[in-house]
Amino acid sequence: ILLPVRTSALNEEIEVLVFLPKNNSYLFSISRVTPAIEYATQTMKLNGLPYSGLNFTVHYENSDCGNEALFSLVERSCMKKPDLILGPVCEYAAAQVVRMASHWNIPVISAGALATGFNQKEKEYSHLTRVAPTYLKMAETFSALFHDFSWKSAVLIYDDDKEERNCYFTLEGVHSVLDAEDYHIHVVVIYSKVDADEIIKETYDYDVVIMCAGADIIRDIMLAAYRRRLTNNSIFFNIELFNSSSYGNGSWKRGDKYDADAKHAYAALNVVTLLRTVKPQFENFSMEVKKSMQKAGISGDGANINMFMEGFHDALQLYAMALHDVIKNGSNKKDGVQITQRMWNRTFEGIAGQVSIDANGDRNGDFSVMTMTDLQAGTYEAVFNYYGNNGTLQKMPVFNRDRFTLQVRHRIPKSEDPD
Amino acid sequence: ILLPVRTSALNEEIEVLVFLPKNNSYLFSISRVTPAIEYATQTMKLNGLPYSGLNFTVHYENSDCGNEALFSLVERSCMKKPDLILGPVCEYAAAQVVRMASHWNIPVISAGALATGFNQKEKEYSHLTRVAPTYLKMAETFSALFHDFSWKSAVLIYDDDKEERNCYFTLEGVHSVLDAEDYHIHVVVIYSKVDADEIIKETYDYDVVIMCAGADIIRDIMLAAYRRRLTNNSIFFNIELFNSSSYGNGSWKRGDKYDADAKHAYAALNVVTLLRTVKPQFENFSMEVKKSMQKAGISGDGANINMFMEGFHDALQLYAMALHDVIKNGSNKKDGVQITQRMWNRTFEGIAGQVSIDANGDRNGDFSVMTMTDLQAGTYEAVFNYYGNNGTLQKMPVFNRDRFTLQVRHRIPKSEDPD
Repeated sequence: ILLPVRTSALNEEIEVLVFLPKNNSYLFSISRVTPAIEYATQTMKLNGLPYSGLNFTVHYENSDCGNEALFSLVERSCMKKPDLILGPVCEYAAAQVVRMASHWNIPVISAGALATGFNQKEKEYSHLTRVAPTYLKMAETFSALFHDFSWKSAVLIYDDDKEERNCYFTLEGVHSVLDAEDYHIHVVVIYSKVDADEIIKETYDYDVVIMCAGADIIRDIMLAAYRRRLTNNSIFFNIELFNSSSYGNGSWKRGDKYDADAKHAYAALNVVTLLRTVKPQFENFSMEVKKSMQKAGISGDGANINMFMEGFHDALQLYAMALHDVIKNGSNKKDGVQITQRMWNRTFEGIAGQVSIDANGDRNGDFSVMTMTDLQAGTYEAVFNYYGNNGTLQKMPVFNRDRFTLQVRHRIPKSEDPD
Repeated sequence: ILLPVRTSALNEEIEVLVFLPKNNSYLFSISRVTPAIEYATQTMKLNGLPYSGLNFTVHYENSDCGNEALFSLVERSCMKKPDLILGPVCEYAAAQVVRMASHWNIPVISAGALATGFNQKEKEYSHLTRVAPTYLKMAETFSALFHDFSWKSAVLIYDDDKEERNCYFTLEGVHSVLDAEDYHIHVVVIYSKVDADEIIKETYDYDVVIMCAGADIIRDIMLAAYRRRLTNNSIFFNIELFNSSSYGNGSWKRGDKYDADAKHAYAALNVVTLLRTVKPQFENFSMEVKKSMQKAGISGDGANINMFMEGFHDALQLYAMALHDVIKNGSNKKDGVQITQRMWNRTFEGIAGQVSIDANGDRNGDFSVMTMTDLQAGTYEAVFNYYGNNGTLQKMPVFNRDRFTLQVRHRIPKSEDPD
């Protein structure tokens, strides 16, 4: 699974500290990610592979999504500092751990910490490498689409839970990119009570509507748009990167009396998601990880392989390659700056496909835009793929330009109700 | 200087860690605050005073305004944890230190950390006591004024430096209070380039304009308001709590050709500031502290006694009283929860006057509203005092109701320029 380069024997004991939540409601819970990490350390040890001399000792710490990660890092590190930190994924936990680790010259690799703030690697986040595509990388997809279709304005609608704030951080990335390109942006925040009819009024004057919220909120908004005959007034997007069970499966279907309307409404909804790839080696990984999850009592949709599992697997591979280079150059595992630098600006074969880390230590991302292609069945297919490596937008055979072309807009004054 | 209660001898060694910036551009720099802290520890040691058995060992750590404070706390605490932490003042430094200290059960007292977020004492900021009035306390002054004069709406204008964000946090407090009382609020953020004419257009429809920004920006805005004959269209406030040299002295005077206009414009500007008191004992404190500052090379306006010096002095007094109670109750200096609780909901005589800490561990604040009372000389006097203890607004003899009564507003359409 590694690059087939034979190297001089590398014998090192590596202490790894993993910060992930114990709570299985997270797609990146300890039980889910542990099998992926173990798969990586075990396959690396196989005879004949270039990194078989690396002996990883992995400690798992429950990070929650708050302050616990920092507290346990500090307590553990008083005696002995780890050589490598994996995680945290949650932004607020990651911020604290990455700051402390950077200060201590310890490399941190995460398949999370996707928020735009972590881009600032000059100072407090200097030792962070991100192996999953960030929100800013995702936002490039919109930049490419806006350019291609000459859209001029967007309203960003997000649900702010004021806790982990995933949707806030998701649309922060979109805002950064579109605002820098001088598009006209309007932001609507949903706090607690959702009044879909009020929200939809805010979309009248905008070319594009970009949303991030729970599946039920998205459905309410799309139903409100459909009732007001606004689904063709703007181009609607929902961002659903991880298809998390906490956000619902994104379907229009609920088994209630609105299903028929919802299917019609969702015919106008485009969904931005991660482009996932597979390759032959992936099958064995997938099988082994699923087996382990099953033992841990995780089944159903939550036992699917996700970007976090792949990311943390690939993180160890990336670290091993960088460490190898650093040792070859006469330094050692305590040289966090060098190890981090060697992980950046590097492309390699990960467990599910090519992984390309940019010069700032952030993974380039590939994304798909899905739309309903079978209006009868209400099923989705990808119409675009966006490739972050070279910034290209690929149009799939089912792509239909009309769908992304703005109609002449009915100018509806805000005070008037079209119903 | 302490409450005249004789107590059984208290003999304790107390390790104090002080986090303040070394950089003298801060009003709360180590050189400025050290003399106040030393004055407190030395006067407490005087024979016959109830806390003379307390022996404070004080370590000063340069906190900057960023992450350094946490790093040095962690490094120092691996061997031995301090008994008490004073500071940090800057919000971002304080957040990290207070979280860690609360986790370790160490009391933290600060004359800073004034932002609204620190009000949440249930969880991560459980061990924080604030001995200077917070931004939320300051905002009560506006609540009282809005109520008294039946104002309905406000535009909040602030300069966001994206670093320490003092003005952001200042107006966040005002926003929290006025928004909860259902006033109509509009927010204008100044990032870098200031276009005073554009800013002033945003004030047309609002009863009250509340600003926090550097002195030059305030002057530009007031001049723009004056030129457009808008100084009587709304009631204008500037918040200038500490009269920091970094924000300028708040005067209209610059010695340029706009001084005459600026004096007229400032005749309509009200300034909210801390209400400072003095009492006989203060003189000795002031003299000693100034002497020490002079030795450290600090002179001029920057050598005035400020709220931070008083606050950190009083912090040690408050701690001594609480520790005394806790020991009397059979516990000890390591009982951070008890010591913190004993500091809350407590009123005592500080070095400059009465200090009242509310049930949430935050000091009640007294504030003044100053206005130009001599239009010839352009000098200011207090027209209101607001007392946070009982929430009363005191009108001073120079108060003139007309000045705070809204005129019939000229409705100027935003697109039209009155010049």
